[in-house]
Amino acid sequence: MIEDKNQQRTPLSSLGEFGLIDHLTKNFKITHDSTLKGIGDDAAVMKFDKEVVLTTDLLVENVHFDLSYMPLKHLGYKAVMVNLSDVYAMNAMASQITVSIAVSNRFPLEALEELYAGIETAAQIYGVDVVGGDTTSSTSGLLISITALGEAKKEDIVYRSGAKPNDLLVVTGDLGGAYMGLQVLEREKEVFKVNPNNQPDLDTYTYIVERQLKPEARKDIVQLLKDLEVKPTAMIDISDGLSSEIMHLCKHSKVGCDLYENKIPLDPQVISTCEEFNIDSTTIALNGGEDYELLMTISQDDYPKIKANPNLTVIGYMTEENAGMHLVTRAEEKIPLKAQGWNSLSESE
Amino acid sequence: MIEDKNQQRTPLSSLGEFGLIDHLTKNFKITHDSTLKGIGDDAAVMKFDKEVVLTTDLLVENVHFDLSYMPLKHLGYKAVMVNLSDVYAMNAMASQITVSIAVSNRFPLEALEELYAGIETAAQIYGVDVVGGDTTSSTSGLLISITALGEAKKEDIVYRSGAKPNDLLVVTGDLGGAYMGLQVLEREKEVFKVNPNNQPDLDTYTYIVERQLKPEARKDIVQLLKDLEVKPTAMIDISDGLSSEIMHLCKHSKVGCDLYENKIPLDPQVISTCEEFNIDSTTIALNGGEDYELLMTISQDDYPKIKANPNLTVIGYMTEENAGMHLVTRAEEKIPLKAQGWNSLSESE
Repeated sequence: MIEDKNQQRTPLSSLGEFGLIDHLTKNFKITHDSTLKGIGDDAAVMKFDKEVVLTTDLLVENVHFDLSYMPLKHLGYKAVMVNLSDVYAMNAMASQITVSIAVSNRFPLEALEELYAGIETAAQIYGVDVVGGDTTSSTSGLLISITALGEAKKEDIVYRSGAKPNDLLVVTGDLGGAYMGLQVLEREKEVFKVNPNNQPDLDTYTYIVERQLKPEARKDIVQLLKDLEVKPTAMIDISDGLSSEIMHLCKHSKVGCDLYENKIPLDPQVISTCEEFNIDSTTIALNGGEDYELLMTISQDDYPKIKANPNLTVIGYMTEENAGMHLVTRAEEKIPLKAQGWNSLSESE
Repeated sequence: MIEDKNQQRTPLSSLGEFGLIDHLTKNFKITHDSTLKGIGDDAAVMKFDKEVVLTTDLLVENVHFDLSYMPLKHLGYKAVMVNLSDVYAMNAMASQITVSIAVSNRFPLEALEELYAGIETAAQIYGVDVVGGDTTSSTSGLLISITALGEAKKEDIVYRSGAKPNDLLVVTGDLGGAYMGLQVLEREKEVFKVNPNNQPDLDTYTYIVERQLKPEARKDIVQLLKDLEVKPTAMIDISDGLSSEIMHLCKHSKVGCDLYENKIPLDPQVISTCEEFNIDSTTIALNGGEDYELLMTISQDDYPKIKANPNLTVIGYMTEENAGMHLVTRAEEKIPLKAQGWNSLSESE
């Protein structure tokens, strides 16, 4: 689909492992004061004044991404976002990443250059240093393993476990876009299989396709919360769908939750595409995943500070643990919140 | 070969991703003061007083290991060693690791339990906390991505770049064992293919097989150097063979080197197995790899402190960069040192 058939193909073996790493990482610049030594020794060396947060994610071809519609540059960018999102979910600022890839010899050097260009762009925009990694061959496909480090003062770090009954449940941005973008791309892939000359027209789906192919981690929210002088009582990033993340927060914080269906923020393009695909948009927001928004709980005392902010939407409140986790529907019915399994509801609407 | 045909097979899908991670990591204990939060949030949280070193390695099935003779428990152990070795090569002490795996559904839960048992044993013995990771499915085989963190005072950290002309070149332990162990295991695998009832007799190869299957990272050397009050001028771990590592040290330090063939430490079992396989033992020591010993340069002033130590062998000295890198053979011939390519020498001996 997006593939360029005329691309140059330099075999990876022509560079050797060390030559390959040198070549791919030669543009990476060290900008953080906390980085004392980046790529090029047995290990990177850093000096942190604050507490350090550490997270890691693995992306596997044909499990997490499909190269038939995911350009490699976007993939590199997204792989960094997936990790930074976890750092921001701790209310910390990301500072360094390591990038390891396993790659089969069907990928030419030019493909890896694209991938690393996306990684470099992400690192530059988000202000993180690429300080290490590993490059190795794989027997099949492409795999990307990224580890991200960040910094925060101890008193600023937000865990999943601090939510209290009556705290407000707040989400950033809007939900379901990444999943619906994927549906559109999957459909175009099928069309393309039947007729390779058919060029996809994605103009009406720009926003949701971008949510899927080039998500942005919410670094801005960490800064915003600081500016608003709000410290969430608990926070998590939305990688697996709202429903699943709410359940994590409730489990770790030992609270229940009432989530209001009519409060869930949806972009008009998500709504119209859901209608086109005949899917219930609430189901998508609850279970879609990959939005990389932040879900947090804040004390009611902080409500005045956030209420006017377009980035933050109150979607419910926390309850006592024994009250359970519920979705309050538009029809004011209260139904138990389930991860994934809630799909069945869409059939009755 | 080593596989137990009667093992229980619980499909991974029966636990789900979160259930699986919980199950596999439930025995991991946090012991380091620097670990504030381990597994169970968006990120781990740590507080370091000293400088932090960070390294990561990727191990891929049928590229880095062969499960037909590598028991999963040993693989887990070795995967940790590979990473800790890089931390010790910075003259730092390892403190935390993250462990990510991608695994195809041909692996039952019991196989992953074995793998994690090896990881846990390594973490316990070496005093590191497992603070995070990711578990995902793969379309083929097993892949392990480990990231290790360590700590050291800034003034204690040793880079590859500090070697000076006239410094002594020093290696720990002995070399070539891991590679010859692999040769023995590969041979037994071929025998087993022909006659599956033939039980391998590895008694005469215990040391070298253990060097391959269960290497130990040289944490003890970091402590020893401290006790001896020796700070190497440069250091690197030997993962790819002595020759290649010497060339890295020389390149980063901008020096040359004379390496003495008759000084290279070899275990008698390596020598006898090389004879049996009709391979030159020097070639193996130079190019074999996977020994995870440490290679360092020290100032001649420190020689009295190390000369009596059985763990440390002086194998040469550094020269001016323009003198080049050479092997001084037993016949006192001086030949240019090459990584890998030096194999041709073995034919003429």
